[in-house]
Amino acid sequence: MILTVTLNTALDITYHVPSLRPHASHRVSEVTERPGGKGVNVARVLAALGHEVTVTGFAGGTTGRVLRDRLTEVPGVLDALVPVSGATRRTIAVVDGRGGTTQLNEPGPVIGHAEWSAFQEVYDDLLASASAVALCGSLPPGVPVGAYAGLARTARAAGVPVLLDTSGAALRRGVAGRPDVLKPNAEELAELTGSHEPLRATQDARRRGAGTVVASLGAQGVLAVTPEGRWRAAPPAHLHGNPTGAGDSLVAGLLAGLVEHLPWPDRLTRAVALSAATVLSPVAGEFDRTAYEELLGRVAVTAEANAA
Amino acid sequence: MILTVTLNTALDITYHVPSLRPHASHRVSEVTERPGGKGVNVARVLAALGHEVTVTGFAGGTTGRVLRDRLTEVPGVLDALVPVSGATRRTIAVVDGRGGTTQLNEPGPVIGHAEWSAFQEVYDDLLASASAVALCGSLPPGVPVGAYAGLARTARAAGVPVLLDTSGAALRRGVAGRPDVLKPNAEELAELTGSHEPLRATQDARRRGAGTVVASLGAQGVLAVTPEGRWRAAPPAHLHGNPTGAGDSLVAGLLAGLVEHLPWPDRLTRAVALSAATVLSPVAGEFDRTAYEELLGRVAVTAEANAA
Repeated sequence: MILTVTLNTALDITYHVPSLRPHASHRVSEVTERPGGKGVNVARVLAALGHEVTVTGFAGGTTGRVLRDRLTEVPGVLDALVPVSGATRRTIAVVDGRGGTTQLNEPGPVIGHAEWSAFQEVYDDLLASASAVALCGSLPPGVPVGAYAGLARTARAAGVPVLLDTSGAALRRGVAGRPDVLKPNAEELAELTGSHEPLRATQDARRRGAGTVVASLGAQGVLAVTPEGRWRAAPPAHLHGNPTGAGDSLVAGLLAGLVEHLPWPDRLTRAVALSAATVLSPVAGEFDRTAYEELLGRVAVTAEANAA
Repeated sequence: MILTVTLNTALDITYHVPSLRPHASHRVSEVTERPGGKGVNVARVLAALGHEVTVTGFAGGTTGRVLRDRLTEVPGVLDALVPVSGATRRTIAVVDGRGGTTQLNEPGPVIGHAEWSAFQEVYDDLLASASAVALCGSLPPGVPVGAYAGLARTARAAGVPVLLDTSGAALRRGVAGRPDVLKPNAEELAELTGSHEPLRATQDARRRGAGTVVASLGAQGVLAVTPEGRWRAAPPAHLHGNPTGAGDSLVAGLLAGLVEHLPWPDRLTRAVALSAATVLSPVAGEFDRTAYEELLGRVAVTAEANAA
């Protein structure tokens, strides 16, 4: 199975309003609620592709109970979340009539020492049967900032390939754990390396410890710097839609390609097609299967010359 | 005991953010959660004043369970909420650094026929031991728009004085049930009567069926048209603070004065002092007890000449 780690899981709530005006009162016309956090989203996409997935991380409080209840309704996803005394955070996405989204994210529960230790034991046990592991998203308060570096090292010691998708200090410190794959977006890459030039920044990120860096560049697709070569992979033309979850679908595509031992160009094709099919889906964070299959034939992968 | 009815109870969530910007992502720095809905807020204030209060209405789902759990922590308030299959709504108040509040209100659960019947039975039973009843707030979907008129008639038939505090169609139809006290704000009064002139509109509202109309006019205090006379009651000068819950405190003050058989000027003094002490409180919806006691001596009540 593929293991995804979400230390800061979330109950993702979406509100629809005609238009969001600061300091006004709004009647919400439509409410949806689903289990969230990057690793949970990645797991949902992997399961939809037919992979066995286990999710771990933390869940607690009433919101954690709702999240776990909802997770049982997702076929193919196994729940190995570790209970904590604090309450799982909520995120509120307020979608207005113009298609814009205003995001409000709660901070997440404070994780105690004993809870962090309990998680590490569960993680070690799960690695024994994992074909790959993804470390995803922000760290809740109480988890050491170097957490991802430690988890990446443990995975590598167990012979399990590890992908890291996070930001800020967790990314800066996590890359030192030498993850096999790093998946930053343009902003995270710039924050990590200080460079806004994608190729230079991607190479720099790789020198900091990652085996491969796959930088997601939004509508332009991805730039991958791997031990086997460098590629750019781009979706056809410009896609109109909701980019929520596109990065998580990209990670799911990379993991699926990894466990199926696809060559890099094929992995990137799959990842970019999944990501684009997520932008095109009418439901935020889901991918449109028909669009995905059609896009597989339309992603352009080009080898990048050795330079810089 | 005093009975408060909240058909559309809510789990009130408050988020603090430095500044709310549409289409941006925000980290919430502080989250608070408490049982809400107008009648629940009224009950909290009455209990703090030393009155025995019972709350009824509907509660359901995970949010309803959290609301009822929290209600057990409020001393002096008895929970007689009727369970429903739908989930109690959440309301989100996003408070920004400038003290402005952006409100997002979920619509509330759809109430079934059997649930509405079950509530009416519980309500009838509770009236037997009630000294006064307050019908508060919006109607959830599924409850007939004339609900408050029926509940007011039942209360009057049982000899229990009834106060109505609602808006829109629920107010327009509810006033036909001849509540003893109607507590509209300026906007509700204008919507009900078509007049923006407070005295004229208050008198008109009374002619529509209410025994007494106490119109809340924000910073200017209240205008009361009663069978015993007309009064204006105003807090001293201009108060700076958060008006959230000021209307609910006003209702609590009117009910407390009613069951203690205070003369109207004293009831109005108490209600206006409570309302002003709620504006001054650092916690939204709570009243500042020291400010309340001090304000009791500073509310100006003036008899209004018979005219128009």
